[in-house]
Amino acid sequence: MDSLSNLPNPQSTSRSAPAQLKTPKGTLDFAGNEVKLRKNIFRIVSEVFECHGGQELDTPVFELKEILSGKYGEDSRLIYDLQDQGGELCSLRYDLTVPFARWLAMNTNYTQVSRYQIAKVYRRDQPAISRGRYREFYQCDFDIAGKYEPMIPDAEILLIAVEAFQGLEIDVTIKINHRKILDGILAVAGVKQEMVQQKGLTEAVADDIGRFVRNRGTLAETLTLLKGSVELSQNEYIKAGIDDMSLLYSYLRAFDVCDHVSFDLSLARGLDYYTGVIFEVVTALPESKEDASQSQGPQVGSIAAGGRYDYLVGMYCNRDVPCVGISFGVERIYTILSARLTRKKGESVFAEQYDVFVVATGAGGLLLDRMAISGQLTRAGIRAGYLKKTQPSLRSQLRAAEKVPLSIILGFEELAAGNDEKDRGQLVARQDLVKEVKKILERLGQDKTRAICSPQK
Amino acid sequence: MDSLSNLPNPQSTSRSAPAQLKTPKGTLDFAGNEVKLRKNIFRIVSEVFECHGGQELDTPVFELKEILSGKYGEDSRLIYDLQDQGGELCSLRYDLTVPFARWLAMNTNYTQVSRYQIAKVYRRDQPAISRGRYREFYQCDFDIAGKYEPMIPDAEILLIAVEAFQGLEIDVTIKINHRKILDGILAVAGVKQEMVQQKGLTEAVADDIGRFVRNRGTLAETLTLLKGSVELSQNEYIKAGIDDMSLLYSYLRAFDVCDHVSFDLSLARGLDYYTGVIFEVVTALPESKEDASQSQGPQVGSIAAGGRYDYLVGMYCNRDVPCVGISFGVERIYTILSARLTRKKGESVFAEQYDVFVVATGAGGLLLDRMAISGQLTRAGIRAGYLKKTQPSLRSQLRAAEKVPLSIILGFEELAAGNDEKDRGQLVARQDLVKEVKKILERLGQDKTRAICSPQK
Repeated sequence: MDSLSNLPNPQSTSRSAPAQLKTPKGTLDFAGNEVKLRKNIFRIVSEVFECHGGQELDTPVFELKEILSGKYGEDSRLIYDLQDQGGELCSLRYDLTVPFARWLAMNTNYTQVSRYQIAKVYRRDQPAISRGRYREFYQCDFDIAGKYEPMIPDAEILLIAVEAFQGLEIDVTIKINHRKILDGILAVAGVKQEMVQQKGLTEAVADDIGRFVRNRGTLAETLTLLKGSVELSQNEYIKAGIDDMSLLYSYLRAFDVCDHVSFDLSLARGLDYYTGVIFEVVTALPESKEDASQSQGPQVGSIAAGGRYDYLVGMYCNRDVPCVGISFGVERIYTILSARLTRKKGESVFAEQYDVFVVATGAGGLLLDRMAISGQLTRAGIRAGYLKKTQPSLRSQLRAAEKVPLSIILGFEELAAGNDEKDRGQLVARQDLVKEVKKILERLGQDKTRAICSPQK
Repeated sequence: MDSLSNLPNPQSTSRSAPAQLKTPKGTLDFAGNEVKLRKNIFRIVSEVFECHGGQELDTPVFELKEILSGKYGEDSRLIYDLQDQGGELCSLRYDLTVPFARWLAMNTNYTQVSRYQIAKVYRRDQPAISRGRYREFYQCDFDIAGKYEPMIPDAEILLIAVEAFQGLEIDVTIKINHRKILDGILAVAGVKQEMVQQKGLTEAVADDIGRFVRNRGTLAETLTLLKGSVELSQNEYIKAGIDDMSLLYSYLRAFDVCDHVSFDLSLARGLDYYTGVIFEVVTALPESKEDASQSQGPQVGSIAAGGRYDYLVGMYCNRDVPCVGISFGVERIYTILSARLTRKKGESVFAEQYDVFVVATGAGGLLLDRMAISGQLTRAGIRAGYLKKTQPSLRSQLRAAEKVPLSIILGFEELAAGNDEKDRGQLVARQDLVKEVKKILERLGQDKTRAICSPQK
């Protein structure tokens, strides 16, 4: 408890408004329905994660500066640092992967972990709000860490991607490739180029590589193509990649998700730490131009991505903890889903949403009665409102009630006498009010209609 | 897409571990069940907020520095600043009230808003982890902003407190007081003291004030006491406070929550900006020493607090937006609830939690079959696991399945021949698997038992 004598007079506070009334550059407030839609995305995706044994992790928004350093290459300049106010030097997290790796390194008692984390990350990038690029934005990551037999967790991550986007009702294609195949093709191309330069071979031979890299097909097709090329399939990297991808193919067939996967040899992902499978999830490509015109909304590029990174955790400790994971692009998914919702013009993003509205017709406003009934309902978990005035007009109460599925009218008999709403109303015994309201709301939920009821005197 | 040629070799990365493998001072990771319990608190409290028309707000973790400055008095030194890396100067939020006030000032189209926000806040305080004081911690705030008739929103905030703690199953008392009554008592006491010093009155007269300040009783009792004191009830501040509290009393009676409220004239809250009702929620005080020994866990002080602040928003704009709100002490509530959960010794906070575990008895491990069935189940939203190995022993599979309510056994006939688990199993047609599993899980959920089923060949 604080000393009484220290209380200043709050009215004496200076009222000069700050020069700038805004959120920091590249950040936004989300309110009401905007938060609802985001949370709905999180709920759908978390449920899929938990179906696969995923457990949630919540880490601090800032980490020791040295934990982040050396992990993002040139992008390190985009890290937000905290000011040195004495004590440890800290930085805001740049992604959720490095905090997870730090957590794995600290918690040596877990040998196999499936974790997910949904949280905001921070990048001092040039923001492009119109294209959905912010300085503060949500990431939503699922990763499987620990030693497993090859490709089993990798296949599970791809199954999770398929299930999550089915839950979100977004048609997707998952483009996959393998880091070792990329490395192998680069090696073979390097040798080729030398041969062209030194031995005067025709450019046409070198073009073979380009043909391969542009290839995009089913897993089976691309595997056949790779195995058919003597030149490529003899490279050790590519051989190892083919083995992995063949195994992955058999697992994806067992999961019955091959239809959603395209093996794209040109796919390369920016992050340094990938070591095996890499993938990007894109909204399904239309089969033809006709389909394109009916496509499902804005083109937003990849909406999830990930891959295998076997050596990141080892940077923090003297153990190898191989990992494979996926990160969902929450803002891009939000853009797609919100484009589907048609919001009525003028409808507030921040409107109160009640199931029941309590109205009184009697003289004197009956505020205490409306409060008593509303309190009974909220205590039973029903979203109940009333006009928070002592003497509201009946008209203003009914106008507020119009947006709400169920109106409870005190003094209904009086109203009914001169009102054509009469036929839609029902009298309810006061002691059964909560029970009856629940019943009516259940019925209304199915019929999407409005109703009126009234407690008996 | 990134250029293929820029990929470094990840295995070449230096493996020197950072000097310190930890989270920053005063911060913690939360994992698995710790996150679950926190989210459960948020869910229960949010549902109450939404019952009262509350809409969620999500603001950036940092604000422009000038938005925070001058709002926290001496505590301003505890604000985390971001380093000046060019551009705007920013600070991490210190609470959720100032960001809400900033949002209200920016969004002039909302005249009446009930908003809630659940988010972490940041204070460079001396952490005391054992007493639950951190540098990063959750706040959970509900506020009603806008012009209303006196005390109606104030009563609603107290009703919300009662409903929230009923939902959390924590018995509480809400201690309330009024800023104007505090100010009035201070004024009267000041006059008294002068009289004592200048006119040589006995100290006994001055002691009257002390008697009042130590008073604690029901709303009705304390109101009677105040009105009965000629000296106090003539003070203008106290008069205004009595009027407010009498009105509040009538509303709290309508809401039927007076039993939970204690009018405590000694209650003062630290924050400068309170102007009217102030309150603190404490775990219910035991009636006697016997009760005390059976009390509900650790003593944690106040677990929610709030009050009316009518001039804060005006500091950001040229409008008055009167507000009243409550902030829930998430960490303290967490401490109470987690003390109630008895965790089995050695049980991991981060264990996979499945509803179904798929086991194969046949030779060869049947990994693809186990994957196919698990995939069918997860796609139907069932939390399904299997041992992620090609050739797991039956024993290791059954051991993993022991922790899971339902085991699905492929090749059950073979197992049943020599196993006493036989009687507990049931054969299920493969095409009905998902449907049957859902049925069994529903039954198990009621009985809290384990079961086994097996798809027919």
